[in-house]
Amino acid sequence: MSALTPKTANYEQRVRDSFQRQGIMHTIGATLETIAPGEVAIRFAPKDALSQQHGFVHAGVVATVLDSACGYAAFSLMPENAGVLTIEFKISLLAPAEGDHLVATGRVRKPGRNITFAEGEIHGFTDGQAKLVATMSASMMTILGREGVVD
Amino acid sequence: MSALTPKTANYEQRVRDSFQRQGIMHTIGATLETIAPGEVAIRFAPKDALSQQHGFVHAGVVATVLDSACGYAAFSLMPENAGVLTIEFKISLLAPAEGDHLVATGRVRKPGRNITFAEGEIHGFTDGQAKLVATMSASMMTILGREGVVD
Amino acid sequence: MSALTPKTANYEQRVRDSFQRQGIMHTIGATLETIAPGEVAIRFAPKDALSQQHGFVHAGVVATVLDSACGYAAFSLMPENAGVLTIEFKISLLAPAEGDHLVATGRVRKPGRNITFAEGEIHGFTDGQAKLVATMSASMMTILGREGVVD
Amino acid sequence: MSALTPKTANYEQRVRDSFQRQGIMHTIGATLETIAPGEVAIRFAPKDALSQQHGFVHAGVVATVLDSACGYAAFSLMPENAGVLTIEFKISLLAPAEGDHLVATGRVRKPGRNITFAEGEIHGFTDGQAKLVATMSASMMTILGREGVVD
Repeated sequence: MSALTPKTANYEQRVRDSFQRQGIMHTIGATLETIAPGEVAIRFAPKDALSQQHGFVHAGVVATVLDSACGYAAFSLMPENAGVLTIEFKISLLAPAEGDHLVATGRVRKPGRNITFAEGEIHGFTDGQAKLVATMSASMMTILGREGVVD
Repeated sequence: MSALTPKTANYEQRVRDSFQRQGIMHTIGATLETIAPGEVAIRFAPKDALSQQHGFVHAGVVATVLDSACGYAAFSLMPENAGVLTIEFKISLLAPAEGDHLVATGRVRKPGRNITFAEGEIHGFTDGQAKLVATMSASMMTILGREGVVD
Repeated sequence: MSALTPKTANYEQRVRDSFQRQGIMHTIGATLETIAPGEVAIRFAPKDALSQQHGFVHAGVVATVLDSACGYAAFSLMPENAGVLTIEFKISLLAPAEGDHLVATGRVRKPGRNITFAEGEIHGFTDGQAKLVATMSASMMTILGREGVVD
Repeated sequence: MSALTPKTANYEQRVRDSFQRQGIMHTIGATLETIAPGEVAIRFAPKDALSQQHGFVHAGVVATVLDSACGYAAFSLMPENAGVLTIEFKISLLAPAEGDHLVATGRVRKPGRNITFAEGEIHGFTDGQAKLVATMSASMMTILGREGVVD
């Protein structure tokens, strides 16, 4: 697993600082659950302000949290002065997004100098029982030397 | 274009009513711009509460609005008593999401009894100039006879 | 894992019979490696007739074998008289496709009456060393009662 | 459309030369139909050697031709000494792949120094009537200075 060795000693703090700047995470009420090299988990709870028309959490909100989890999993392995941007992602919705709370986990499948491939899963927890809600496959880009895009 | 003939006379009102129930659209400040058979456009403006870490609109918020645009484009062609759920979507982020406001348009490529294929595009408008921000490819499912999933 | 219980006693033979009818598998020189409920592996070796311009196996050939692996993983759980069709898939190319031989494995993440979600991975083997080449995320459809689409 | 200006005078010949080296295109019997800056079309005809189990063209073969169309659309805009590699693609299968012949067209949506976003469509033609079979969304990478990856 040497490929998932962080390039900076303070990767955890850098993820926390960048996450803190994401206004949408505050809006969602999402918090960082775990930060490890190449793996980040984010937790949030359903509320009316995040719903789609049937009362479940909107697929886009699920995607938002998964995208941040995958993005920060990639970012945790990036060098100092780097920024991370999402190139693309695909999300599959396996079950309605509901539960007492949900936890999205992003994991790096292959880090790269330019492009990092990550995958994500999100589970809904109801009375302690986990249910797989969605999966994500994402490509993240390392941005170096672009003003305004440093995390 | 006979394939994009709506199955209900009140498709526009049904889209409006369902959209109104999406709590996340209120949170984003999104409004319906146009509703036609198989095509729906949604508009919103950037704000801090929707941002990622560099100040752009979060990719997940872009995905949320595109997903609703694609979903309602599909729903506009569905029969009475149907509900719409997203099976999966892929989004490609072509440029940072910014502008005075953004407009996401979803269009049905192929309607089907079970599955409807839709595509979406979102443009950012700055001083009246449009810039393509992202594209989406989505599969939507018609739900019939499932309690709690009627739009 | 009761969700991955096959609905037929002869699922293995049904997969073999259907695979045998795929002309492209003969063209590629692909063979079934393993068949289990909800999981199918397919093996093949690189050759000039499958190459892209730099001599690696073409990404589309990698996708073809992964698509069959995911499709038969889904089909292994389907009822008698069913046929399987691919709705969509996404493939991420993590490394050039090369090796003495490659093995693609498809696994069902969530079976469903209409739609089955599957995931695939393909590894290249060189001197017994495995390297992850690509990953796939796919949606498969169960077809019932459509003439010409029975496996 | 200045963004789709080729960086080389001989882009058409470079596409033809690289295409000629793709062994799988010979296996499929595919030929270049049109080459324009940022747009490439490829044509082929169904045959048993390309089939899936119901006699249609295998989804993976459809993906292979679309991937080459998108890849060469991107490559047509790349500088001298560049090579093109697929990062990822998603394909949606809208209708069974059949016809007297099929034509896949790839178009660049946004060229970039590192990453080019392309989209593809493939139609089946039966008695001169076109039917949309599949759509693709792809990310292509420009490779510079990597031995063995020059087109």
